[in-house]
Amino acid sequence: MQEDRDPGAKYFECSESERACFEAGIKLGAIYHQYVGTPVSLENVESLEKAIEAGVTIQPFVSDVKVSIDRSHLSPKKSLYKYMSLKGEMLDVWLQIKYGSYLATCEMKYVDELKYTLMRVTNVKKV
Amino acid sequence: MQEDRDPGAKYFECSESERACFEAGIKLGAIYHQYVGTPVSLENVESLEKAIEAGVTIQPFVSDVKVSIDRSHLSPKKSLYKYMSLKGEMLDVWLQIKYGSYLATCEMKYVDELKYTLMRVTNVKKV
Amino acid sequence: MQEDRDPGAKYFECSESERACFEAGIKLGAIYHQYVGTPVSLENVESLEKAIEAGVTIQPFVSDVKVSIDRSHLSPKKSLYKYMSLKGEMLDVWLQIKYGSYLATCEMKYVDELKYTLMRVTNVKKV
Amino acid sequence: MQEDRDPGAKYFECSESERACFEAGIKLGAIYHQYVGTPVSLENVESLEKAIEAGVTIQPFVSDVKVSIDRSHLSPKKSLYKYMSLKGEMLDVWLQIKYGSYLATCEMKYVDELKYTLMRVTNVKKV
Repeated sequence: MQEDRDPGAKYFECSESERACFEAGIKLGAIYHQYVGTPVSLENVESLEKAIEAGVTIQPFVSDVKVSIDRSHLSPKKSLYKYMSLKGEMLDVWLQIKYGSYLATCEMKYVDELKYTLMRVTNVKKV
Repeated sequence: MQEDRDPGAKYFECSESERACFEAGIKLGAIYHQYVGTPVSLENVESLEKAIEAGVTIQPFVSDVKVSIDRSHLSPKKSLYKYMSLKGEMLDVWLQIKYGSYLATCEMKYVDELKYTLMRVTNVKKV
Repeated sequence: MQEDRDPGAKYFECSESERACFEAGIKLGAIYHQYVGTPVSLENVESLEKAIEAGVTIQPFVSDVKVSIDRSHLSPKKSLYKYMSLKGEMLDVWLQIKYGSYLATCEMKYVDELKYTLMRVTNVKKV
Repeated sequence: MQEDRDPGAKYFECSESERACFEAGIKLGAIYHQYVGTPVSLENVESLEKAIEAGVTIQPFVSDVKVSIDRSHLSPKKSLYKYMSLKGEMLDVWLQIKYGSYLATCEMKYVDELKYTLMRVTNVKKV
């Protein structure tokens, strides 16, 4: 949990709610592109989830975060080598950004209908 | 350049300007975390800039993008091995996201005063 | 193409052929874990191939490299969003490392039989 | 710890000791290029070390691994934002690969004299 003091405020030209959404996008883009490709199996999946969460938590304006990796992809039968590379479609991330008086809630999750790992804003509100 | 048709619109609960800022954050977070660590020298720097730009351009709602990598970090004298790993502070990115009737302009650049590679929104306007 | 002068030679305890194989492994591991996750479509695939090649070429002891990305994965019909994330199984890499008087030839390619993107040494010889 | 059974053996043309060194290179290249750029501070550094170790341990032929991240880079005074991006020079990795009857011991560590994060083989022996 970060305080909402912002040393870079003067460099921005947008509203508090737009800023909250911008910061949320940064965090989701970062998670996807930092960790996709990481070796993962049933043995290390929990350690990886915790490390991703801990790496998000220390970033600015993050109020809460929950990461889970879909274990159904991790059956040891899927490869003779007994591990996989983390793919975007295995990720299920929920996070909240608090900026000024706004709270943005976001998710990243594979959406069957779109055949796409969608990063989305599910709520923005004044708090 | 992408059209602004949005197959995932119904999954969002935010305004068009908030969405533009969210998408901008995703793209900047993605660039940083995808490419930091890439081997870079004066020999391949232009190829890398072009590849980063091309990889951003194909993403949804990107209207324009310009990537430049600070060559002052790339002097062959800096390492006996004659190349470096791309660091965030070498990146200078400018991009525009168009969502619905809003255009968000953003940058990522190292800010001396903050000792930080800042991703920021410099303008959001109705177009 | 790098000269085979080695500023770090004294830090190693292995034969020249073992060293050539070690360096080859580094380059293949680096390619996979640096670029998997990168946005890719038919529009930017050639730019990405060239950038990966250029980023390998500048690394120590690389004598030759060829990268190709399997375009059959990149049909615009595969996603409403018209781009994909680079996956290991799309990569086909061939490279040669020259260390001292040894040349190691390696590949990274998806192997159907193993359901795995295999990095392998196909030849080591004195030259 | 992996068994040393190798489902891909027939795809290789090299000696057991060369193979051990090749596999070691893959793992070190993978660590560097997967995790460089990850957000890190004194708060999450231990979680990140454990996750990197766990992600290496599940890969083929890894016999032992130890990862430590240099905390001297992580002083909260170094940035107003209170976290850093993981850089190669913060990493200190030691690992052993067992392939067939050979054990290769390797390290990745910043070497002052070279101004370079060197991946190196410190020992290869028949066991």
